[in-house]
Amino acid sequence: MDKDLILLGHGSGGKLSHQLLDELIIPTLSGIPVSGQNDAAVVEHDGGRLAFTTDSYVVDPIFFPGGNIGDLAVNGTVNDLAMVGATPLFISVGLIMEEGFSRKELAAILVSMREAADLAGVRIVTGDTKVVPRGKVDRIYINTSGVGIFEHGLRIDGCGARVGDKVLINGTIGDHGVAVLSAREGLELESGMKSDSAALNGLVAEILKEGDAVHVLRDPTRGGVATTLKEIAVQSRVTIKLSEAELPFKSAVKGVCAILGLDPLHVANEGKFLAIVSPEAADLVLERMRNHPLGADAAVIGEVTEASAGRVQIETEVGGLRGVDMLAGEQLPRIC
Amino acid sequence: MDKDLILLGHGSGGKLSHQLLDELIIPTLSGIPVSGQNDAAVVEHDGGRLAFTTDSYVVDPIFFPGGNIGDLAVNGTVNDLAMVGATPLFISVGLIMEEGFSRKELAAILVSMREAADLAGVRIVTGDTKVVPRGKVDRIYINTSGVGIFEHGLRIDGCGARVGDKVLINGTIGDHGVAVLSAREGLELESGMKSDSAALNGLVAEILKEGDAVHVLRDPTRGGVATTLKEIAVQSRVTIKLSEAELPFKSAVKGVCAILGLDPLHVANEGKFLAIVSPEAADLVLERMRNHPLGADAAVIGEVTEASAGRVQIETEVGGLRGVDMLAGEQLPRIC
Repeated sequence: MDKDLILLGHGSGGKLSHQLLDELIIPTLSGIPVSGQNDAAVVEHDGGRLAFTTDSYVVDPIFFPGGNIGDLAVNGTVNDLAMVGATPLFISVGLIMEEGFSRKELAAILVSMREAADLAGVRIVTGDTKVVPRGKVDRIYINTSGVGIFEHGLRIDGCGARVGDKVLINGTIGDHGVAVLSAREGLELESGMKSDSAALNGLVAEILKEGDAVHVLRDPTRGGVATTLKEIAVQSRVTIKLSEAELPFKSAVKGVCAILGLDPLHVANEGKFLAIVSPEAADLVLERMRNHPLGADAAVIGEVTEASAGRVQIETEVGGLRGVDMLAGEQLPRIC
Repeated sequence: MDKDLILLGHGSGGKLSHQLLDELIIPTLSGIPVSGQNDAAVVEHDGGRLAFTTDSYVVDPIFFPGGNIGDLAVNGTVNDLAMVGATPLFISVGLIMEEGFSRKELAAILVSMREAADLAGVRIVTGDTKVVPRGKVDRIYINTSGVGIFEHGLRIDGCGARVGDKVLINGTIGDHGVAVLSAREGLELESGMKSDSAALNGLVAEILKEGDAVHVLRDPTRGGVATTLKEIAVQSRVTIKLSEAELPFKSAVKGVCAILGLDPLHVANEGKFLAIVSPEAADLVLERMRNHPLGADAAVIGEVTEASAGRVQIETEVGGLRGVDMLAGEQLPRIC
């Protein structure tokens, strides 16, 4: 019976999401193979390339430490374009609101969207507004889609990881998920955590100065670092080994995750990205990251060790080796 | 108090929608003036032009005579691109589903989306899937965004209507709204109405062979023919006069509207468009419409009579003249 129904886990970004996407949604809508699935579509037209992406935001609560559903939506779509190496240019906004939603809260959300767009250097150029009767949506959901262009000939996608490559991240892991969860549970003050929600296109442009040394970029949102690396490992047919000692965490994230029994590697980020780069360029990319305000805590956290069917391992601080998998089921519904 | 809250009417597509858009949403997000507001944004990049649009679909019921939320979404976005004269190419799909939604219904919706895309000659290239807890959305809402290109140098927008121009429509008015309403009220069998949901890009390409004789194109969805013509009248600063005797209606639409006290000119269409064309070309455009399967019932329904602040009038069958205005409040929530 259950297999005939959509479950919360189908929206987790983890294993169940991938099953639904790979078995039903993608084959039916587009037929794009797993190897071609990236944060944004790269479409060719008239000799040029465009990037195009979409995301719906259903985060709860809609205001949380470090942001709200509006700037989260703009940043998320900007980031999806940046992760294929595109320069984000144009954003669309689709609002679905509940009858009785506060106009003042709407205004605050819209102001944040505009500010986020200005900061990221993109323009909101088109939109749509729907209102449904009370109880038919939870306050407000926002869809943002985005279009970007390419200012270089690089091909950056999930298939590009090669044995020997280094795995970098631009800062601490799990901040967004823990901030939203803390707000939801009334723990903001205890945790002091803020979402890391930010537009990453500026930082990405910086590291793309290393050219084709940058093989893969992906932002570990729903499903977290573990799920994202597993996706890349599968697409590139390699094994990725993380070094536990090198993983950057804020202590509050470790604390909240320990209390709630969460694996921080499965917790969503909204201002972080993983970069898989050639070993020769790793130090230069790391330096470029650290010289940028959004990369101060950047670290090399692992490497691509061998060709395989797609595996992620973690070398623990005591020297053991354990497997890392996608998020199974649903850990934190409505985290973005 | 009420003025601080979002009302159902703010999503009607009519007067309240325009107020919310013009006072809050558009100034905050983009600053695009009323004169520049069309069904899709036309953005210039690198010497070329792109069209970009977004729409969220919250129709209730999700399956109705003549279509479902899926093909409605694809057709709607294709049409928004066609209405600025663009050739639609790429579509994104954002799904928001309720926990417990039927996988079988999802599959049926996705199949319809793919079929609609194939029929319109567009590709679904990117997507996003969210699942929210039961009761946080009503079954399924779908956002589709779209990107199109221009294969000509024509500028088609709401400002283009000129005194003397003729107003054409490609077929009968109000079919979609009456079909959905009938399904909602259990009147399908009595009314026998089907939605007119269809992709209009093929027919638009046909009439664009008349070149710059085609001044304005717009599809009268939410808010209906009256609201859409009022928008155009305001943008072009003209008076548009409709001839009641020439308005094409199916008798079931007139019947249902009479029983329910609806003005069919405020009822949504999903496979119709208004074309405002130069008087010399009106007969040729009408002929091109009638030679196309989606234009068999096309008619010249009015003309642009004078310069004004933006007025729509209707000449009644008994020879009177009355004003036509945008839909005020909300007539049929969740019609698309």
